Amino acid sequence: MVIGAVEAGGTKFVCGIGNEHGTIEDKISFPTGHPDETVPRVIEYFKDKSVDAIGIGSFGPIDVTPESPTYGFVTTTPKPGWAQYDLLGILRREFPVPFGWDTDVNAAALGEAKWGAAQGLSSCLYYTVGTGIGIGVYSEGRTVHGLVHPEGGHTLVRRHPDDDFDGICPYHGDCLEGMAAGPALQARWGAKGHELPENHAAWEIESFYLAQSISNAVLLLSPEKVILGGGVMQQSQLFPLIREGVRRNLNGYVQSGVITDDIGSYIVPPGLGQQAGLCGALALGVEAWKNQTSSV
Amino acid sequence: MVIGAVEAGGTKFVCGIGNEHGTIEDKISFPTGHPDETVPRVIEYFKDKSVDAIGIGSFGPIDVTPESPTYGFVTTTPKPGWAQYDLLGILRREFPVPFGWDTDVNAAALGEAKWGAAQGLSSCLYYTVGTGIGIGVYSEGRTVHGLVHPEGGHTLVRRHPDDDFDGICPYHGDCLEGMAAGPALQARWGAKGHELPENHAAWEIESFYLAQSISNAVLLLSPEKVILGGGVMQQSQLFPLIREGVRRNLNGYVQSGVITDDIGSYIVPPGLGQQAGLCGALALGVEAWKNQTSSV
Repeated sequence: MVIGAVEAGGTKFVCGIGNEHGTIEDKISFPTGHPDETVPRVIEYFKDKSVDAIGIGSFGPIDVTPESPTYGFVTTTPKPGWAQYDLLGILRREFPVPFGWDTDVNAAALGEAKWGAAQGLSSCLYYTVGTGIGIGVYSEGRTVHGLVHPEGGHTLVRRHPDDDFDGICPYHGDCLEGMAAGPALQARWGAKGHELPENHAAWEIESFYLAQSISNAVLLLSPEKVILGGGVMQQSQLFPLIREGVRRNLNGYVQSGVITDDIGSYIVPPGLGQQAGLCGALALGVEAWKNQTSSV
Repeated sequence: MVIGAVEAGGTKFVCGIGNEHGTIEDKISFPTGHPDETVPRVIEYFKDKSVDAIGIGSFGPIDVTPESPTYGFVTTTPKPGWAQYDLLGILRREFPVPFGWDTDVNAAALGEAKWGAAQGLSSCLYYTVGTGIGIGVYSEGRTVHGLVHPEGGHTLVRRHPDDDFDGICPYHGDCLEGMAAGPALQARWGAKGHELPENHAAWEIESFYLAQSISNAVLLLSPEKVILGGGVMQQSQLFPLIREGVRRNLNGYVQSGVITDDIGSYIVPPGLGQQAGLCGALALGVEAWKNQTSSV
């Protein structure tokens, strides 16, 4: 079986093929331009691959409601050409195979649950902390949707006592993304995250916001694993600070040995490393293929 | 078919019987005392009812992990006699029928999704705002569990600019429950909620915290309905304040007509009114009965 995978990111697209065991066998990557330029490259890649199904994990917001007339569209992005763009529909017309379709972070959460850090568990959260902050939610063995889809990067946060930064989210100012995504780090400190030393005050403040968001998500959803990926999380000194912050915030209330005694195994980097996004798209493709098979 | 329902609350127990359409046909209620006194009354009630299944929605924390040796226990409550108490096991030994078991708020969310304000939807949140604050989570057609179960009442909140109240949560001080549950209202204002006039400053502050929690939960989970029950929510002047607060917090970011144009139909009181908890337990019983039937 050959499953296609598309990690449709706001900065770059990654296309690949793989199998039902999570192995990526081939991939290419190119920058995200106008869809008239980018989507033909996706089509070109899969043209001779004889895929049995394709999974797409996309930047958003996207329409994930199957009954909606705009199901499969990228909806309100400011990215030129992509607003109200029928990404799924265009690819479906080219390739008459089952398609899986979800947000990039939900896909990554699913991939981690199938083959990564949350393997065998029925729930996890997948954070990406980079240009923006996204939180994929996998719960009771499925990715979560509802009115639209999770957008947890924009939750409101309590301010760090030493932080007077205004925040840069155009919608909410000092929400989580406005205070802790890569561009917020850069705006606050005048340097990119990877240019700041490991012991810079930036990391204590950064971990404060991420730990707060994770604590609240753990209380609301009780995930069995919290996975932190994305460019900012390449600063591995953040992990112990975040874990300590979560423990401090919860203060023994969530009585689970994993949190009280073994939080190092609970809040972790992606098991699939840099391939979490592409493997997630692959997992969506595998699910689409299985669903079609089981409904025949 | 006769389904038993137990709403096992921290203050009172309600036992009833009903059918698979959500109709309660009989019920009794008594205060929650020591289990040696309370549980025999539950057993006595069901003894001659010939129930086909029983659902229990319980105060917590409780163990909801089927593989756990303490599945069915109330775990770490300070309530005398109830800590590490095998509530489900004791009732199971008396009645050899299928049992459903979940938190009181998850049960209420399920009941509302079956027969109440979220009927026909695949997701909703159920808040109870009373002696404590609990948030039941129903998502993708099922109640949510994971490491333990949702405990969203204890999420951290941003402080209201005019509020210098310390908060009364023994674990977190000024978390949502510490700032906005009934006892916090009383400690802050020196009077119970129902004794304060409708235009008292208490309500603007109360709605601030609840709207913040709802906004964050909507961002993280995208529920199709948010249902607010419990004693404090009997103050119906809170609803318009909360809805306006949520709209203000989200600031157009979640692009769904329900939120931008019709939030009055999105944030609502329980469709099952005061019976949300008992109907929720009934729904758990119906599910247990169906699961047994389908696995035979």
